[in-house]
Amino acid sequence: MATTTETDVRPGTGADDRYDRETVRAVLAAARRDGRGSLTAPEGREVCLAYGIPTPAEGLARSADEAVDLAARMGGTVVLKIVSPDILHKTEAGGVRVGVRGETDVRRAYDDIVAAAGAYDASARVHGVQIQQMVGAGQEVIVGATTDPTFGKVVVFGLGGVLVEVLHDATFRLAPVDGPTARGMLDDIAAADVLRGVRGAEPVDADAIADVIRRLSDLVADFDEIREFDLNPVFADAHGAVAADVRVVLDDEVRPPPVRYDQQEMLATMTRLMRPRSVAVIGASAEHGKIGNSVMRNLVDGGFAGEIHPVNPKADEILGRRAYASVTDIPGEVDVAVFAVPAKLVAAQVEQVGHKGIPVAVLIPSGFAEVGEVEMQEHLVATAAAHGVRLLGPNIYGYYSTHQDLCATFCTPYDVRGGVALTSQSGGIGMAILGFARTTKMGVSAIVGLGNKSDVDEDDLLTYFEADEATQCVAMHLEDLKDGRAFVETAQRVTVKKPVVVLKAGRTAMGARAAGSHTGALAGDDQVYDDILRQAGVIRAPGLKDMLEYARGLPVLPTPQGENVVIITGAGGSGVLLSDACVDNGLTLMDIPPDLDAAFRAYIPPFGAAGNPIDITGGEPPSTYESTIRLGLQDPRIHALVIGYWHTIVTPPMVFAELAARVVAEARDDGIHKPVVVSLAGDTEVEEASQYLYDRGVVAYPYTTEMPVAVLGAKYRWARSAGHLGAHDR
Amino acid sequence: MATTTETDVRPGTGADDRYDRETVRAVLAAARRDGRGSLTAPEGREVCLAYGIPTPAEGLARSADEAVDLAARMGGTVVLKIVSPDILHKTEAGGVRVGVRGETDVRRAYDDIVAAAGAYDASARVHGVQIQQMVGAGQEVIVGATTDPTFGKVVVFGLGGVLVEVLHDATFRLAPVDGPTARGMLDDIAAADVLRGVRGAEPVDADAIADVIRRLSDLVADFDEIREFDLNPVFADAHGAVAADVRVVLDDEVRPPPVRYDQQEMLATMTRLMRPRSVAVIGASAEHGKIGNSVMRNLVDGGFAGEIHPVNPKADEILGRRAYASVTDIPGEVDVAVFAVPAKLVAAQVEQVGHKGIPVAVLIPSGFAEVGEVEMQEHLVATAAAHGVRLLGPNIYGYYSTHQDLCATFCTPYDVRGGVALTSQSGGIGMAILGFARTTKMGVSAIVGLGNKSDVDEDDLLTYFEADEATQCVAMHLEDLKDGRAFVETAQRVTVKKPVVVLKAGRTAMGARAAGSHTGALAGDDQVYDDILRQAGVIRAPGLKDMLEYARGLPVLPTPQGENVVIITGAGGSGVLLSDACVDNGLTLMDIPPDLDAAFRAYIPPFGAAGNPIDITGGEPPSTYESTIRLGLQDPRIHALVIGYWHTIVTPPMVFAELAARVVAEARDDGIHKPVVVSLAGDTEVEEASQYLYDRGVVAYPYTTEMPVAVLGAKYRWARSAGHLGAHDR
Repeated sequence: MATTTETDVRPGTGADDRYDRETVRAVLAAARRDGRGSLTAPEGREVCLAYGIPTPAEGLARSADEAVDLAARMGGTVVLKIVSPDILHKTEAGGVRVGVRGETDVRRAYDDIVAAAGAYDASARVHGVQIQQMVGAGQEVIVGATTDPTFGKVVVFGLGGVLVEVLHDATFRLAPVDGPTARGMLDDIAAADVLRGVRGAEPVDADAIADVIRRLSDLVADFDEIREFDLNPVFADAHGAVAADVRVVLDDEVRPPPVRYDQQEMLATMTRLMRPRSVAVIGASAEHGKIGNSVMRNLVDGGFAGEIHPVNPKADEILGRRAYASVTDIPGEVDVAVFAVPAKLVAAQVEQVGHKGIPVAVLIPSGFAEVGEVEMQEHLVATAAAHGVRLLGPNIYGYYSTHQDLCATFCTPYDVRGGVALTSQSGGIGMAILGFARTTKMGVSAIVGLGNKSDVDEDDLLTYFEADEATQCVAMHLEDLKDGRAFVETAQRVTVKKPVVVLKAGRTAMGARAAGSHTGALAGDDQVYDDILRQAGVIRAPGLKDMLEYARGLPVLPTPQGENVVIITGAGGSGVLLSDACVDNGLTLMDIPPDLDAAFRAYIPPFGAAGNPIDITGGEPPSTYESTIRLGLQDPRIHALVIGYWHTIVTPPMVFAELAARVVAEARDDGIHKPVVVSLAGDTEVEEASQYLYDRGVVAYPYTTEMPVAVLGAKYRWARSAGHLGAHDR
Repeated sequence: MATTTETDVRPGTGADDRYDRETVRAVLAAARRDGRGSLTAPEGREVCLAYGIPTPAEGLARSADEAVDLAARMGGTVVLKIVSPDILHKTEAGGVRVGVRGETDVRRAYDDIVAAAGAYDASARVHGVQIQQMVGAGQEVIVGATTDPTFGKVVVFGLGGVLVEVLHDATFRLAPVDGPTARGMLDDIAAADVLRGVRGAEPVDADAIADVIRRLSDLVADFDEIREFDLNPVFADAHGAVAADVRVVLDDEVRPPPVRYDQQEMLATMTRLMRPRSVAVIGASAEHGKIGNSVMRNLVDGGFAGEIHPVNPKADEILGRRAYASVTDIPGEVDVAVFAVPAKLVAAQVEQVGHKGIPVAVLIPSGFAEVGEVEMQEHLVATAAAHGVRLLGPNIYGYYSTHQDLCATFCTPYDVRGGVALTSQSGGIGMAILGFARTTKMGVSAIVGLGNKSDVDEDDLLTYFEADEATQCVAMHLEDLKDGRAFVETAQRVTVKKPVVVLKAGRTAMGARAAGSHTGALAGDDQVYDDILRQAGVIRAPGLKDMLEYARGLPVLPTPQGENVVIITGAGGSGVLLSDACVDNGLTLMDIPPDLDAAFRAYIPPFGAAGNPIDITGGEPPSTYESTIRLGLQDPRIHALVIGYWHTIVTPPMVFAELAARVVAEARDDGIHKPVVVSLAGDTEVEEASQYLYDRGVVAYPYTTEMPVAVLGAKYRWARSAGHLGAHDR
């Protein structure tokens, strides 16, 4: 076994980013040669030194004399720890002494430890005793890295002790991270104020901690075989950060990287899928009630202008279109093959699709992995790959591309074209999307089922939606990601241009995970998803209804140009609830300057309240709503309006809706584009008024003060993340 | 000034609940005589001792010799603190030494402190130096009490240091608390696990901490003039809890207790309001568009079977009813006078109402405190009190008592009778209630506007709804409570019988409060409301829509008899989201025993998943839903069902709705009453199916997996709190 003979007692301060990869490689190779799954403490420190991660001064003593000498050179109190590849739990083995000081005590501690180790396990190989400068002043934090099954290498940061262990107050990022991202992690924990100095304490050196995070992230990114790496605790004070303990777990096997497609290749294939000129339906049928009939009917009835080719060896014609015995018989180029044949026939047909040169197969059939037919699915995927065919599904309802009038599903056509593209992993959720869209007249560019995700996944579709001019917003329901890292890379690129909403199901199903370190134990699936989706710039929806409402509202709302939100309300009670909702959604209620306050006051009764919310009071005529909304739109210091409408005889719902929509339209004609959301409180006419407003670009809801503000909040989260409002939290 | 001469060095352990009130009274009187707003540390300790709150052994030394003697008798390390009524900031004055041990050091510390105090303020009166046994082992917690403007004396508990100061992890209760309530506070903080022992630590003595909380709560309840009382830190370990530091702030003035009515008196008056035989309308009008006309019309059109007496000196008859010049002219007993006259005429008419012996006036008119006419309202209240008239409002839409066909509002009648009574402080929210009720056909017993709450408030109405057999659930929107303590007392009584849902608006408007202690600073309004509403057994709704949906659903759902929830779903995707929602709402997914698992498996396809969720898979016919739902209802080990429906051609929405409603009805006929909630995913027909189910006692929603489970969660929160499920968290 390789043990370090390092006796350099200066604090480890590996100078800069010229990392010493050779040393790390050698340490890891030695451990591998030894068949060990973890590094010894001196090895861990050596790795830290090689990457410039500060550790306490330390050295290996092979005798009590050496221990005394080392302790003397460290000039203070020391910790002694047994070094043995056979003793994992040093404390249990009596192999640790802390706070030892002075020649006599150091000598005695050395002898005691070696004796205790022998008593604990007589066969244990003892390489000596590690003498470590004792640190412990300042704030205890934890910096770690682990290998997530979805995202690969991630780094974690949290405060030490109770805060991470009991409250799980920690934050994750994909490794490697750059300096600003690492620095951002410090602000991202609940107890961030502790680092800024509380109870009279000095703020800690945040840059030093961020530097440790960045260096560790580089280390684990460089060496895939490091499974977990704990720096716990790291002691940080105003002058630096030192990793007091290091624990490194190695991987038995390094997994092969997931299959990836080139971005241009994805885009080309997805464009043929979503904007086809020619579609083949394999298993098309003239018989009512068959899926192959529903698909044909929907393609025809939906008004798809391209070619539709039924494939069915037993038919000459289906729905007035010539039928072909095989997909290879179809003349000319075909872009998509939609499958409506039993599962067991799919693979053979995919082969034909490959021969015909069709780039993508849409696999509606179920009966694959979801019913335990994992091998059949694997065979299918291999067949498709061998023949250059990409697969959507299997086990899906199909897909809609509304701007092409394309409905390749067994459901019914959907014709409200608009700016949101939706995908769902589950068919049930897909059906909920369709029903919700229809009843709310949501403007849609695409709805795509992903089902078993045997091949085409969120990355492929995101890449297409990024380029698709009709799509202004993407909403995705997902239960897992095949390749989380690829998703993040794609999402980071796309979300700068368009909002991406994700409903991640299985949030709370935190499976118990075997973990060899604190970091591993911290990495509950959902926390990692939550942090990393945010890192990707994605807006996470807390539930299905929220995803649907965000999807409906985000493309409708203009992007805000600043943080100043103003509430104008006819009901004081709504104003209070809308204020609550603004705070809940991280929105900033504008501090209204005196001249603007005076301008609002000119329109409202003397007992109304200016300030923010602006309470115009309940008995006011339409003109008061109109004047105040117009002022709110025209004053350039205001960036978004939240309106609380109260149904009265003086200003009935449709009168309000008409005026609000008109004033917003007038502003738009003047080049003023601000998000306006409305909560309507009143009798049932407010429902019609809400739809009227929504149809005209004003996000409006009856009987809720929460939802309009939640949609505005989602738009703001995106705008901030995409850099439209200055701050850029990536 | 009174300073203690106590030199008893035993830890303070005032034996039991025979509190020494005399001593406390004397200490407080001395401070008052001195014109002091706070107590000295020795005084604070004396008060603690009198109430049996353990404090470290301590004594007052007037000389270095006495200091040495005391320290020796305490047998360990001590803290020395200057005792001077003129020195508030002891540390600044150099008046504190910690960790002093041994004769030489104690003597030197004594001399240093006295010298430093003299240097700091030569004129300061020095009574000596307090010698205190040094404590500091174990877990640091904070126990405190403060005077909340709404609730009066409250106690708070939290972990010390960063956890309360940065994360505000603390919990509040009305003082005084009994033992079990105090004990429950320990489980109610986020970091509760710390007390149970983490990182190998022994659990702390929870009973000892609870005892400190209970004793402090008794103390502040007994002495109203104690405004704030901090025990911070209290050190707790496995063997007890000791308050290491005491800080007491006194009140300058003791506020008069709020006006209260006797419960029987409230009930009698409210019963005449809600079930009147005879109603007068003051300001009744024959002219369309006038409020006095709308009210008359609604009373008549609503079908009220009692007498309706218009009062208007200028009319002989209104809507076919004889009009009276004055309310005093009406023959016979009148129960309610509804006002529809301008604000300035109200007080004089209230006087007449008093002369007529009418017990309650419903004041629709606005123009009082809400527009700044505070004095006019105060005059009105005084007039009413002098004439024995209770006031509802002013500034309200009126009220509905649907089982009486009574609509005394300027809105429109509402005729779906049912079990929920709703109140709102704001008219806008009242209108939202009405619109929501109408569109969802919510069964209502009453809707009442409270407006300015000049007199009648939530207590009065709760007392009536408690007795009202038609009311099975109460939902209240409120922005404040006039007398929080009276509300809690009433709610605690009522919520044992019926769920009470509260939407507390202004949650996030945490005004900055001047506070002289940690406890005071911790007491942000909303945290106090949140904890104490829970203590009252109230279900707090997070938003308006939630309040409305809880109100609609709670009376419909039977009370669960146990914690075992089972999800049955046709869509695996919905099952995952429903599981998330169950966890979010604190519901327990039943661990299905093998025999029950086998019983479910008998109905579902081999590739379906038993377990929980039970995934019956999407392609199943109606019979599979029917068999599994029936089994779920019939097996007595299951207590509630959550169903995820997926729209398919095989089982269309209305087919599912009919079968689900039928199976539930059959079970009900067999005496099986279990809550069943459904999430429907599908095309727009699922909306009709949801309403069909809801009308038949099955809480069902389209396009959301969250709301059905949230309503079930609210029912469970109530059932637990009311003691139906064993645990009783009060």
